[in-house]
Amino acid sequence: MAFTEKLRAAQTATGSLLCVGLDPDPARFPAKFSRARADDAVLAFNASIIDVTQDLACAYKLNLAFYEALGLQGWRALAETVRAIPDDRVVILDGKRGDIGNTALRYAEAAFERLGADACTVAPYMGRDAIRPFLQHTGRCAFVLVATSNESGADLQHIDVDGKPLFHRVAHLATEEALTQPGDVGFVVGATRPELLAELRNAYPDVPFLIPGVGAQGGDPRAVVAASGSGPTLVNSSRGILYASDGPDFANAARASAAALHEALGTPIV
Amino acid sequence: MAFTEKLRAAQTATGSLLCVGLDPDPARFPAKFSRARADDAVLAFNASIIDVTQDLACAYKLNLAFYEALGLQGWRALAETVRAIPDDRVVILDGKRGDIGNTALRYAEAAFERLGADACTVAPYMGRDAIRPFLQHTGRCAFVLVATSNESGADLQHIDVDGKPLFHRVAHLATEEALTQPGDVGFVVGATRPELLAELRNAYPDVPFLIPGVGAQGGDPRAVVAASGSGPTLVNSSRGILYASDGPDFANAARASAAALHEALGTPIV
Repeated sequence: MAFTEKLRAAQTATGSLLCVGLDPDPARFPAKFSRARADDAVLAFNASIIDVTQDLACAYKLNLAFYEALGLQGWRALAETVRAIPDDRVVILDGKRGDIGNTALRYAEAAFERLGADACTVAPYMGRDAIRPFLQHTGRCAFVLVATSNESGADLQHIDVDGKPLFHRVAHLATEEALTQPGDVGFVVGATRPELLAELRNAYPDVPFLIPGVGAQGGDPRAVVAASGSGPTLVNSSRGILYASDGPDFANAARASAAALHEALGTPIV
Repeated sequence: MAFTEKLRAAQTATGSLLCVGLDPDPARFPAKFSRARADDAVLAFNASIIDVTQDLACAYKLNLAFYEALGLQGWRALAETVRAIPDDRVVILDGKRGDIGNTALRYAEAAFERLGADACTVAPYMGRDAIRPFLQHTGRCAFVLVATSNESGADLQHIDVDGKPLFHRVAHLATEEALTQPGDVGFVVGATRPELLAELRNAYPDVPFLIPGVGAQGGDPRAVVAASGSGPTLVNSSRGILYASDGPDFANAARASAAALHEALGTPIV
């Protein structure tokens, strides 16, 4: 099954564009997790979040930095969290890897074979060589960083290249590379500039967009959907859901936050 | 101690510019490692390489993809390999991480605090936010990808920006950011285009350059040193040393290959 088919099925089953970001920070966990070992605490916290959001979310995105920062225990929790996500939801590993071909092959192997993810995020600074190995896996998707939502994203991404911002060049290279490969390509496009989202959607009507930056980073969910929703769209929120409350009601608060965002995003066009 | 001081001390002690890349691929290990579990095999192989090269190498670079591809056992082998490197050698984690500030903080924590590396490689596509957290650690160094040696490196890096290739913009942003931070910044510059190396060295006489691409990737060690050697320089070789032989003589062959490269690189200017 192609990645886009799995995504469509997950979005139809849940009626949702929402991707929940699992960025576990034990320092922000409710007190009940504080006596457990880090890996057990992370897995238990993530499992609670997955449990209360799975009817509202078509996908989960795991930010690898939060697991790496916990060392070996973090990597154990990462593998176990992937297994705790229902099979018919999309699993995205957000590691923004990007290296020369023989190394990128290993990163793709780690994400798709070792951890069994459906998709991962890829950094384009090293060019097409760095993207290609991620596209060689049938049924998987490489979400290439195109236009990110952080303040200094513009440092390189908005440099003028032949009258257009540089990120258009990245989008072009990535989709061109995907033409000759079995896997799907997607774009990471930040939520904070809906006009850029609309511009990219106009040029790439069928490319899946993974859109971080609503919630804690300030993007407006309705504006995001208006700009991108005519093509395959995933809108991610992490901190705004995970840490909606740090009290014993954290799971209910996370569910309420996810439900509000799900409501604001509306139903996918499928 | 500043990173550059540790580097200078390691280069003086060994009389060497050589960095040995530890990119363990169990499929290429000699037969004697084949019955061990992956983590034990990787650690034993790496320990053999470190043992026979430590008088010839001022630094070791661990390519994280090769450890990630082995899953949890790979992460265990990574942590143990770092511990097996002598304290007075420079340890570089080559993961090319790069993400928004709150995530990059975690990657820096993973590399410098959790794993105890002296330096790591950083990808610049997300701009200064992605670099800054790695520079906040006193005594550590962030080697930012500037001009890489792979074929498609030019896709973005050589785009013309105001009459110069884009990588000059990256070099400028990275060094400017480092001015206000306690850590050191370095550049990753590929060995395959010595004229670019010379151009960057001319503009940045004191920035440490980490130079991959000699050996398997075809860069000429003498040309590299001629171009960069007037400033702090580390020249990396991985496959050419690790897999010089896959027979029982692998350690001697690795040493011979490292010694030949050490000889070709000459003595550091300190």
